[in-house]
Parts: sequence; structure tokens; C-alpha cells
Amino acid sequence: MTKDYSQLWESLGINLEKHDGLLTVLSDAYKNIYLSQENRPQGMKYFDFVISEVHGLRIEELYEAKKNKRKVIGTFCVYVPEELILAVDGIFVGLCAGAEIGFEEAEKYVPRNTCALIKAFMGFKLAGLCPYVEMTDLIVGETTCDGKKKAYEIFNDITKKMYVMEIPNMKNESDRILWLNEVEKFKIKLENLTGKKITLDNLKKAVNIVNEKRKALKRLSKLRAYDPVPISGLDALLVNQISFYDDPIRFTQKVNELCDELEERVKRGEGVFPKGKTRILIAGSPFAIPNWKLHAIIENSGAVVEESCVGSRNYRELTDEQFSTVEEGIQKIASRYLTIDCACFTPNSERIDNIKKLKKELNANGVIHYSLQFCTPYMMEAFKIEKLIDFPYMRIETDYSMEDFGQLKTRIEAFLETLQ
Amino acid sequence: MTKDYSQLWESLGINLEKHDGLLTVLSDAYKNIYLSQENRPQGMKYFDFVISEVHGLRIEELYEAKKNKRKVIGTFCVYVPEELILAVDGIFVGLCAGAEIGFEEAEKYVPRNTCALIKAFMGFKLAGLCPYVEMTDLIVGETTCDGKKKAYEIFNDITKKMYVMEIPNMKNESDRILWLNEVEKFKIKLENLTGKKITLDNLKKAVNIVNEKRKALKRLSKLRAYDPVPISGLDALLVNQISFYDDPIRFTQKVNELCDELEERVKRGEGVFPKGKTRILIAGSPFAIPNWKLHAIIENSGAVVEESCVGSRNYRELTDEQFSTVEEGIQKIASRYLTIDCACFTPNSERIDNIKKLKKELNANGVIHYSLQFCTPYMMEAFKIEKLIDFPYMRIETDYSMEDFGQLKTRIEAFLETLQ
Repeated sequence: MTKDYSQLWESLGINLEKHDGLLTVLSDAYKNIYLSQENRPQGMKYFDFVISEVHGLRIEELYEAKKNKRKVIGTFCVYVPEELILAVDGIFVGLCAGAEIGFEEAEKYVPRNTCALIKAFMGFKLAGLCPYVEMTDLIVGETTCDGKKKAYEIFNDITKKMYVMEIPNMKNESDRILWLNEVEKFKIKLENLTGKKITLDNLKKAVNIVNEKRKALKRLSKLRAYDPVPISGLDALLVNQISFYDDPIRFTQKVNELCDELEERVKRGEGVFPKGKTRILIAGSPFAIPNWKLHAIIENSGAVVEESCVGSRNYRELTDEQFSTVEEGIQKIASRYLTIDCACFTPNSERIDNIKKLKKELNANGVIHYSLQFCTPYMMEAFKIEKLIDFPYMRIETDYSMEDFGQLKTRIEAFLETLQ
Repeated sequence: MTKDYSQLWESLGINLEKHDGLLTVLSDAYKNIYLSQENRPQGMKYFDFVISEVHGLRIEELYEAKKNKRKVIGTFCVYVPEELILAVDGIFVGLCAGAEIGFEEAEKYVPRNTCALIKAFMGFKLAGLCPYVEMTDLIVGETTCDGKKKAYEIFNDITKKMYVMEIPNMKNESDRILWLNEVEKFKIKLENLTGKKITLDNLKKAVNIVNEKRKALKRLSKLRAYDPVPISGLDALLVNQISFYDDPIRFTQKVNELCDELEERVKRGEGVFPKGKTRILIAGSPFAIPNWKLHAIIENSGAVVEESCVGSRNYRELTDEQFSTVEEGIQKIASRYLTIDCACFTPNSERIDNIKKLKKELNANGVIHYSLQFCTPYMMEAFKIEKLIDFPYMRIETDYSMEDFGQLKTRIEAFLETLQ
């Protein structure tokens, strides 16, 4: 960290002692998992810096922005339209949800059999360890799963800041109408919150900013198809995770600089692993920062990791920028979000097609389907997909604890051996 | 059983040997839990008979009905509009979902961490032990929880008979429009399936039949408020469970006969337990037949059991019979179903109000909140309710196994002691 932020954290009600402990653990994990990698692209230095300042400089930026009357909107899901938040000059931040923090506190409010991501966002708040949640003016949830849908009710009792968008269960015509209506309501909510109107001009700019971010992430994803691969799966995961926290314009620029460097690597035939290594596509539940366990195991086991959930689901489709009224823009945005193949939909057959396509594009030898334990939508789809594909496939259910590390390592190594 | 149905079962592909085993276990459990009760109303004889013939005479009735071109529609939820099924002269049956049957088979298709109700309906089918599912022409699911929503996709791969109705996540205006549209689509589906049109006349008759059934169940519920209570919680639960299987006109008549008898008991001050016994309201997940574990523990521990889920959620509200076109009737039906306070909705604050009201009406001393394990919507609401009420309350999470019987008994007895 470049300076001491204790005063800022204290003003946010952060539990300083525990927070110091958390940052130490995070920093050690980062050193062991990330900084120990060999032959990393130079462009990762920026992302290393972002992580080292994840609760520091970025929080200070938000603090400064709030002094200038900008609003901070916390989210947990790729279904919250970032475009609208940017259009009212708001700041979009993913909230802390990726570590086993405050679970004891959380289990006083939600069942023990709740997925780790939900217990983490409850726990971070209850333990006073998430400066992001304290910075928010509004927290936007969505009805993507039973766990989040019902936990948001409880989280609202705690924070008094929740606003929940309804994601329908299907993608029929009446669902599209309902979802469009939700996006329109969200626009009004944001306008009332910020006192700023969404105009054709600011909406077009916002859509472009988010599209450029997604294009940069797609560019990064495509570069991962080369053999030897120019960037590790761990590093690519990190970039995707940071896309939910960082300033989008700066982030896009940094990802593109990274991609420029990776293109040079590809031209030189240079990679982070030897040519011909086994390649795995990971598909499933989201990996919130600092959830790096599975990727660390797979890459330490000698495989190249590809990614599917905090990754491609977030950037696969762009919003059509050809619109000439705000209403039309809102429609284009709503349509784009309904292309996301979240397991919350029934049926969700496009996801299987997307996995097959991604596996092919990235030249993966097999797929590891990852579900957070108790994440019913992805756990169930994992079974369904298994019966519908004809390539090597392994189902994993895990959480944020390290207790199953050894067991997962053994299972994954055995799976990788079958692919050689 | 009054006769040998082996030939009928065999024609349905039932696994005869295992099925005989199942019926023996069921019959023994029924003897131990039900027939051992003292001072039961005479009117329960009919329901004892129905249970003894649950896979026999009732299946034969369905078989005969199908010979007469009537269609059998299987369901799992109080959200499927029975009125429309009756209007096309269809037969509405709840499918087997209440016992730990075929779980090993089911766990090849759905995760181990799936609620017992879902594993049971998968398991009954996969083990070839549910004659009802084999009788169905259509199985109607609903998007009430992640588990069912996603399991129905898999169940459709197995049965090829699924039709899923979308239940929205909220109850706003756009949700009402979506749901009305779902009910209209279901009407068309049923008309196409049966070749019969829904007319004002048959719809009015059907609404009346279902309303009369609900009225009879409400009448039974009200009689349970008296002290001494004229019927046990176990028996009242059974009547509610049978409401999902039996012919609705015959069933209503038998419930009303039972209520006539109970009214006489009330006049005479006669009950199944001594006056002044502790009274418990059970609230939460559904109790599919033969899931009697919790009620058996509570009544054996000396408490009068009241009920809330297979019970009052199913009959609390009637459909307004004042309509003069089919469209208007469909609207009234759709509106009535959206009064159901299922935990699938967010927020679902009316449920807390309903629990408070029911507790008061039934003079209950405390509430036991029951959730099937991994039933996230009810598990989560159980925590929320706990923080919003000021009466004795206990949360229980369990499944269909008997492994936790002793532990539950100890916990419940301790809770009941605090109420005396």
C-alpha cells in the first residue's frame, strides 16, 4: 500500500485490527499465488498495483468522487446494467464476496447451508471489513437465485440500502417486457438518486465505455487461445475480477496495453507455459476476488486454465450502439442483458452451446465445471451438461475454505492425467 | 388393499418387488403413526381407506378415467391452477414426493445437496415406484425455487412430459401481467391436450368445485382452534395431503362429514387431547405424503399440532366466482393464485402477517418453523421471521430420513417445556 489509509477506514467504521489481519492474509496469498508465477507479462504490473491498493487507493478515489457528489452503486452480478450507472456519472463497484470472512456472524442471519458468496457478502459487512459496502449510496441486487433473492431481504434489514432488480425465470416475450420494465425502473431510480437525467448523449457515451471494456476483455480471451499461451489463467482471471472494481476507462486502456504486449508474445511464439500443455476450460459459478483456489490448483498441476463465468458471461455480447432516443437505448441495453446465459433461466440451453463453442475456440482438452456448494442453479446444470456432451468433463463443488485443497488437487491431477 | 393390482402396476412399468416393499413400509408406518392414535373421529375412516388404496383403487380410477379419454395432470405445487384442469375434465394429482425413495438413482441426475422433495420425485420415477407419474399425460412444474426449476429440465429429459409455468419473483404490476399470461397459456395447453374448450359454464363449475374444497379445508382448520382440539394435527395433515390426490367432489363431501362430526365433538367439549395442552403452529416447507415425521414427534411429545404449508397456503383464499366471461374467470383465477404467500417471492412480508394471524386464530403457544434441508427460500425466511416476531419460535431443518429423529425429539421436547 502506498500510504496509510487508517483514518479513512476508521471513518467508514471498518474494524481496523481485523482489517489489518485480512490485508496481511490477502497480501501473502497474492505473493504465493500470483507473484510467484514465472514469465508474467509486464502489463500485469498495473493489476498487481490495483490489488495492492484494492482497499486503499481505490477507496480513496471513491471517497473523492463522493465529495464531488458522485454516487457509488454496489453490485453482485453481471445482470446490473453498468451503462445506466455510468450515464448518471455514478460509480459501479462489485462488493466484497470472495473470501471466508465473517461467516460466524453471517450464520446468525442466513443458514449454514448457504453458498459461500452470499455468506461472504453478509460476513464482510457484519464483520466491518468491506470498505466498498460502506462507500455505497445504493446496493443493487437481482433475483438470480433463491439464496441471493432471500438474503437481499435480510441484507436490506442490515444496510437499508438495497434495491432489487427482478430477473425473470424464462426468456419469453412476457419476460422480455418484464425485464425492460425493470431496466426502465432502474433508470428512474438512478435519476432520483443522483438528481441527473439520462440523456441520449450520456447514455451513448456510457454504452460505448462499457462496450470498449467488454471488447478489451474479449480481446484478452481470444489471445488465450494461442499455444503457447501468452498469459496464465490466473492472471486472466484477475483481470476479469478487477473489471468489476476499477474505473472502466482506465481499466480498458490497461487491458488493451496488456493485450498489445501479449500479441507481441504470440508473434514471438512466447508463452507462460511450454507449447502443447493440457488446456482446461473452467465453467460455472462466479469467482469473486480473491477466490483463486481452483485456478491455482489447476495451473500448479500443469494445465493452462481458461475461464467462463466472471469471464465470458460478462463480455460475450456487446450492446448495439445504434440508437437515436433514450428509450431505444434502454431497449438495446435490456436486450443485451437478456443474452446472458445465467443458470437462473429455464431452459438455458444456449449455455451448453456457449461452453462447446468456447472449448473449441480456446482449444481446451476438457472442461471442469465448478459450482459453489449450495449454488443450486449451477450445481444442477453441471449434471445436465454432463449428460449432453462428449468430451472430458469433471464436476467440482467447493467453497472458499482451504480444507478440500488436497482432495481437489488429487482429483484434478487425476483428471488432467486422463487428458494427456 | 381390497384387491390385487399387480397386473395394473406391471402394465405401468412399476418395479413390483420393490413396490411391494414400499407398500409394506408405508403400511407399517401408517399403523404406528396413525392407527395407534386414540379417540380418532369416525370420519377419519374414509381417509384411512384412501391411504390404504393410495396406489391401488385411486390408480384404477385414473386408469378407468383415461379409458374414457380423460387426461391426468401431475403437479408438485399449489401454484398450478386446478380449476383449469377440472374445466377440461382433466384429473389433477400431486405426484409422489414425500419419501426417501430412489435417492441413489436420483443422485446420478441431481446433486446430493438437493432438497428431499426433489430427490424424492426424481427417485420415485427412476426407481419405478410411482404409479401416478406413469399415469400422467402431462406433468406441470413451476419456477418456485432453483431446485425445482432446474430439476424439471432434467425430469423432462427423463419423462418427456414436463410443462413449466413461470412464477414471477415479485408481485408488481408487470409480474401480474406475466402471471396472467402464464395462466392463459396453460389454458391453451390444456385445451390442446384434451381437445376440449374451456367455456364459461365448465369454468364456473370448476371454480366452484375447487372453492368448495378449500372451504371444507378452512372449516377443518377453524375447528382446530377449539380446546380441547377435536382432531389431531396428524389427522388434519393427512386430510390436507389427500386433498392433492383424491377426487375433489368426493373429498369435499368427506371433509364436510368429518367437520360435522368434529362440530359435535366441540359441542360436547370432547377432544383427542386433554384441554389446555400446549399448541404449536408449524410453518414452512410443504409436507408431501408420507412425510409425517415432524408432526409425529410433536404430537408424541404431547403438543397439539397446527399446520401452515400443505395446509393454509393451499386454501386460505378463494377465487371470486363472480365473472361473466372466460377471460374474466381466468383473470380472477390468476389473481387468486398470486395471493399465495410462497417464500419464492421477494419481498414476502404477507407471510409473516399470515403466520401471526394463524398463530392467534389457532391459539398456538409457539411456532416451529420447518424447512426441508436445502430448501433455500424457506430456510432463509425462517431466519428473517425469527428476527421479526416476539413469541416462542424454533427453526428446524430436516429431510425425510429418520436419522435425526432422536435429535429432533430432544430439541422439540426442550422447546415444548419452555412453553408450559
